[in-house]
Amino acid sequence: MFRNVLRTANVQNRQSRLYLSLRHASNAPKRSKKKETESIEWLTNPSPPPIGKVLTTETMHPLVRQMEYAVRGALPIRAEALSKQLATDKSLGFERVVFCNIGNPQQLNQKPITFFRQVASLCENPELLQASNRDTLLKLYPADAIARAELLLKNIGSVGAYSHSKGIHHIRENVAKFIEKRDGYAADPENIFLTQGASAGVHTVIQILTQNNKSGFLIPIPQYPLYSATLALVDATQVPYYLNESKNWGLDVQDLKKAVDEARDNGADMRALVIINPGNPTGQCLSEENMREIIEFCHSERLVLLADEVYQTNIYKPNSRPFHSFKQVLSSMGEKYADQELFSFHSISKGMIGECGRRGGYLECVNIDEKVMDQLYKIASVSLCPNVQGQILVDLMTNPPVEGDASYPQYKSEIDTIYQSLIRRSTKLAGCFNSLEGMTCNDAEGAMYLFPQLTLPQKAIDAAQEKGMAPDTYYCMSMLEATGVCVIPGSGFGQQPGTFHFRSTFLPEEHLFDTFCKDLEKFHGDFMAKYKD
Amino acid sequence: MFRNVLRTANVQNRQSRLYLSLRHASNAPKRSKKKETESIEWLTNPSPPPIGKVLTTETMHPLVRQMEYAVRGALPIRAEALSKQLATDKSLGFERVVFCNIGNPQQLNQKPITFFRQVASLCENPELLQASNRDTLLKLYPADAIARAELLLKNIGSVGAYSHSKGIHHIRENVAKFIEKRDGYAADPENIFLTQGASAGVHTVIQILTQNNKSGFLIPIPQYPLYSATLALVDATQVPYYLNESKNWGLDVQDLKKAVDEARDNGADMRALVIINPGNPTGQCLSEENMREIIEFCHSERLVLLADEVYQTNIYKPNSRPFHSFKQVLSSMGEKYADQELFSFHSISKGMIGECGRRGGYLECVNIDEKVMDQLYKIASVSLCPNVQGQILVDLMTNPPVEGDASYPQYKSEIDTIYQSLIRRSTKLAGCFNSLEGMTCNDAEGAMYLFPQLTLPQKAIDAAQEKGMAPDTYYCMSMLEATGVCVIPGSGFGQQPGTFHFRSTFLPEEHLFDTFCKDLEKFHGDFMAKYKD
Repeated sequence: MFRNVLRTANVQNRQSRLYLSLRHASNAPKRSKKKETESIEWLTNPSPPPIGKVLTTETMHPLVRQMEYAVRGALPIRAEALSKQLATDKSLGFERVVFCNIGNPQQLNQKPITFFRQVASLCENPELLQASNRDTLLKLYPADAIARAELLLKNIGSVGAYSHSKGIHHIRENVAKFIEKRDGYAADPENIFLTQGASAGVHTVIQILTQNNKSGFLIPIPQYPLYSATLALVDATQVPYYLNESKNWGLDVQDLKKAVDEARDNGADMRALVIINPGNPTGQCLSEENMREIIEFCHSERLVLLADEVYQTNIYKPNSRPFHSFKQVLSSMGEKYADQELFSFHSISKGMIGECGRRGGYLECVNIDEKVMDQLYKIASVSLCPNVQGQILVDLMTNPPVEGDASYPQYKSEIDTIYQSLIRRSTKLAGCFNSLEGMTCNDAEGAMYLFPQLTLPQKAIDAAQEKGMAPDTYYCMSMLEATGVCVIPGSGFGQQPGTFHFRSTFLPEEHLFDTFCKDLEKFHGDFMAKYKD
Repeated sequence: MFRNVLRTANVQNRQSRLYLSLRHASNAPKRSKKKETESIEWLTNPSPPPIGKVLTTETMHPLVRQMEYAVRGALPIRAEALSKQLATDKSLGFERVVFCNIGNPQQLNQKPITFFRQVASLCENPELLQASNRDTLLKLYPADAIARAELLLKNIGSVGAYSHSKGIHHIRENVAKFIEKRDGYAADPENIFLTQGASAGVHTVIQILTQNNKSGFLIPIPQYPLYSATLALVDATQVPYYLNESKNWGLDVQDLKKAVDEARDNGADMRALVIINPGNPTGQCLSEENMREIIEFCHSERLVLLADEVYQTNIYKPNSRPFHSFKQVLSSMGEKYADQELFSFHSISKGMIGECGRRGGYLECVNIDEKVMDQLYKIASVSLCPNVQGQILVDLMTNPPVEGDASYPQYKSEIDTIYQSLIRRSTKLAGCFNSLEGMTCNDAEGAMYLFPQLTLPQKAIDAAQEKGMAPDTYYCMSMLEATGVCVIPGSGFGQQPGTFHFRSTFLPEEHLFDTFCKDLEKFHGDFMAKYKD
């Protein structure tokens, strides 16, 4: 399947590669010669060769340079600096920096799920599992955690070995069973790739789908900037479709159609539709009916569907807005849609688990061409394997303790406690935002974020302009400097031109939440008073 | 520093993106229409639009399709299939598949370093560290492992949280101290990025160095195919230079010069020189004098130096061929070379540690432009952070137990045992290869591989041709089918045209080594007898 790598390195091919692909004589300056003749060159050559660094922002990869990524951009960089400053300087007017810029629950002291970490810890130290240690071990670990670690190690071997590049087969089998149980339709472990977080899976799929710079991808606005950044990096065409804020960030298929037609009229070779469900940064959860329309649309327009479903258990209105996977809805639609191509992404970083630091997730390929699957495997091979510690958490997430297991009561209680608290915090923060002058905020149906709209006084807009900032960036930077709360301006996610938003997680600890809301209220009042028209 | 992400998604920019970059009207067929009119189209249109999948090997990213990667190519895929078959079928003539295709020590039962796994395991389960557990814990863990885990968690917070995208600062400080101690010259934690294995670091650096398809990189032949695969993926120009097998895979600067001049004459914009030291697959270790020449060459030719130094502790002739880092040699060369740009890569996967599965490593940037460093940070941000479990192992690798620590004697004994065994196994395997008819093999000065040269009878070459295989691939495939030993043909790494090689690790367990060598000898004898000219 894979041909020899280095054909191009044999002499004849090497030459053909060079002769074919390169047309112009090089004028790369040589440092030693340049030094000897520098003064002469400066006299005779009006645009002398560059001196100094070989690698500069001028000579680097232009697509990397152009790529933008706000979630860890200017605001978080300033927040980090403030956080360092706080260690020695108590005069900032706040006690801590609160990182609401990113869904990173354990950074804000959310406790990990006990069973998961017990198993992970035993897998790291198989010596503990020796029979001679068992009595001591049972004082520290429940029997089902020990049994799970033993089962995993039996199937993994050592967690220090590269695994299969698609991920450990036993774990992919468990993922397939999880999907079958969730959806009621079959899943095949061979169609599942374990990945280093959902981000790595998204990157691979977008890359393989990009034939050239006309290859077009529909992405939501507002969107998680992983998509715009990755599309920029592979030089694909971004075709935005707007979510409707007045309909709780709903998705209208008519708008998709309009966006596709317009892009095709302009020459785009439309390849795929990206849906984030539940939405990031917007928190909406799609109805099953809407999902059917979306699948019909993709099928009729010949678009591969990319379903980012990493927030599938962060569902806050389970009765009116339950989660359905696109795989499930597609499977329910019968023969006519049986060839619809779909990639679905999941992650250990979200849900009630929040195991962001270990970088784990999976990608399910539905109706993807077998030869393309081989290519995906080849790409996975180059980076050898997803990290095994992340893979183990994928196993635990998709195959947690069940009723009857020793650890089930604690597992259930931990999950429920986090879940109920997230609902309360999302409601409280939305209430806080809606109580503020000039701010409106939809409730979160899912995910970990609110995305309130700001109406800013003209004087604030002018002040932002003076500082060379977008108005929402100026508002967020002012908030950070006044309160230590770091959020991300709407311009980082995209928004209807002329509107202003920001994204905030509702992840600060619940016992700090009243203070957190009060600080925001005070800042907002002061800001609005300062810039009153 | 980072501008707003979604300028291109605002309506006006979106249009400019589409109008500017796309010239041709789309002819993407729509599935619903196609179905209705299919028979007519087939009659009237001599080249009908494609039916079936949207994403195929024809419509996918062409550079991904063209990229080749042998280390996990046809041989390992067949080896995996045989391994599965062995579970139920005992008629294959061998008891196990021995994966010598990849440097993956723990897959071949090398034991992990006890102290490292103890600390990793405690970091996963901080509840164990509570005071109430201390007496029980001390029955299972030495005090210094507990203290190290406590120190790490104090600096990390939770291992389940995304860390700084460059890696945890405390760990980067320890890496900098390690480099200072190794080299005797200062290192700055701000110049260090923790990475998901060396591969991820190499990919990022090659990408940022590629301005366009003329950007040229000198790579050794034979080489580790990560380099050719990554260069193919970013569409850069590969400029091979040959290592001299008759001088124990030595590197001649005259050859570098010739390769650069020829490439420049053909239009390449030469950017960088890749050196793997100790060599992979060739196992040579550069002398300090040779390294000085290489640095002088890079400086004079204005090339950034990429030093893959992941095998820096796999040194088997420490007196005649000790390891020197390029950072150290460069630092010793004084003011004249003080601006030479250098990236150096290290990994937790190699050495005596072999912690491949957790994907950890680091990248040191030397004399890299500050603004380029910001761009590297931006790229790191898009994938959020390197996995924390890998970062913890980087800490342990660079800051292991020292004399006086409770765990030092065991640590030292484990490292020494593996090291001495590697020397013995490398010598034994080289001896075995050199005893075979038509095979010659240089000793390993470093790394984990031997790369023997094969002289094949014409009949074997003809037989390979009949099967549509390269002769060395045919030899390796025959070896796999006969013995269960999986090695990689030289064509996967590049070799002088007309010569044949293969790469084998010397990682099989020492107690199996005599059988391993005997199996190879028997296979080789049979193969040569069968194809005798």
